Amino acid sequence: MNTVHLRRVIPVLGSGRPVSSSSGGGGLLRLGDSLEVSRRFSDSDVAAYAAVTGDANPIHRHADSARAAGFVGGGAVVHGMLVASLFPKIIASRFPGAIYASQTLQFRSPVYVGVEVLARVTAVDLRQNKKRYIVKFSTRCFTGSGEHLAIDGDAVAVLPTLTLSDSPTM
Amino acid sequence: MNTVHLRRVIPVLGSGRPVSSSSGGGGLLRLGDSLEVSRRFSDSDVAAYAAVTGDANPIHRHADSARAAGFVGGGAVVHGMLVASLFPKIIASRFPGAIYASQTLQFRSPVYVGVEVLARVTAVDLRQNKKRYIVKFSTRCFTGSGEHLAIDGDAVAVLPTLTLSDSPTM
Repeated sequence: MNTVHLRRVIPVLGSGRPVSSSSGGGGLLRLGDSLEVSRRFSDSDVAAYAAVTGDANPIHRHADSARAAGFVGGGAVVHGMLVASLFPKIIASRFPGAIYASQTLQFRSPVYVGVEVLARVTAVDLRQNKKRYIVKFSTRCFTGSGEHLAIDGDAVAVLPTLTLSDSPTM
Repeated sequence: MNTVHLRRVIPVLGSGRPVSSSSGGGGLLRLGDSLEVSRRFSDSDVAAYAAVTGDANPIHRHADSARAAGFVGGGAVVHGMLVASLFPKIIASRFPGAIYASQTLQFRSPVYVGVEVLARVTAVDLRQNKKRYIVKFSTRCFTGSGEHLAIDGDAVAVLPTLTLSDSPTM
């Protein structure tokens, strides 16, 4: 399982473009921070997911079924909800104990088995409620080295702290 | 894996209340039709899901972590996205080749490991687009014999046909 990276985009006055730094380290989550991970889903990942969820849609197992459903990019299509599971996984890995409150998902383009997908969550709103933090993230997945938007949406999570865990789980 | 049931609520003129029929059989999907399934997620389901998704949030494995996060109902909490996977599973089981276009999810109350959850999708809008059908479903999960709304939301799926498969997959 790949590491979840923090990407902090720091606006630099007068520079015309932001400076991006990537790190596996800790610190406090700030508005605009992104956390990202990339992964390829294998046939056996898809089979394991189908087994535990009971979702045996043939488009996820057979290239022929995927083509018949209109997916011409080649191969079987990873379950959209399996790809989307990267979002809570990213958040939980840096904020153990996080609670998911909501998620919207628009499946824009398919993620094929074996193709690298980049999942990114970006903190777009941040509020404190007593001892917890309610954070809205934009949640997006990309394929094709970031060219193709595969999933768009947002999520709200309740975090026990804004301190990023230094030792991400998995 | 439990069977996906079709529940057709037929308004009967003058009767004062609708007549509900439950069936595992086929036919054509109509506006207002519901498909539902119930399931209990076990510790091993949650472990298998955590393994394939990489979501190792401790609230899904340890009752103590769940309590620390504010879940006082007892036991570990099933991943919300695992519970939500029942929606595409229901749709795919009766419409193999269905494509998921979008899903919204509001996690209203927790689903604990071992507790029965009822998932229901109801066709609330139905349009034909060339040879395919674009169907909007309301998507809900309940616990406590239908008393507690656990997940609320809706989904849009593109179906190859409105004919319900007679032999649901899984």
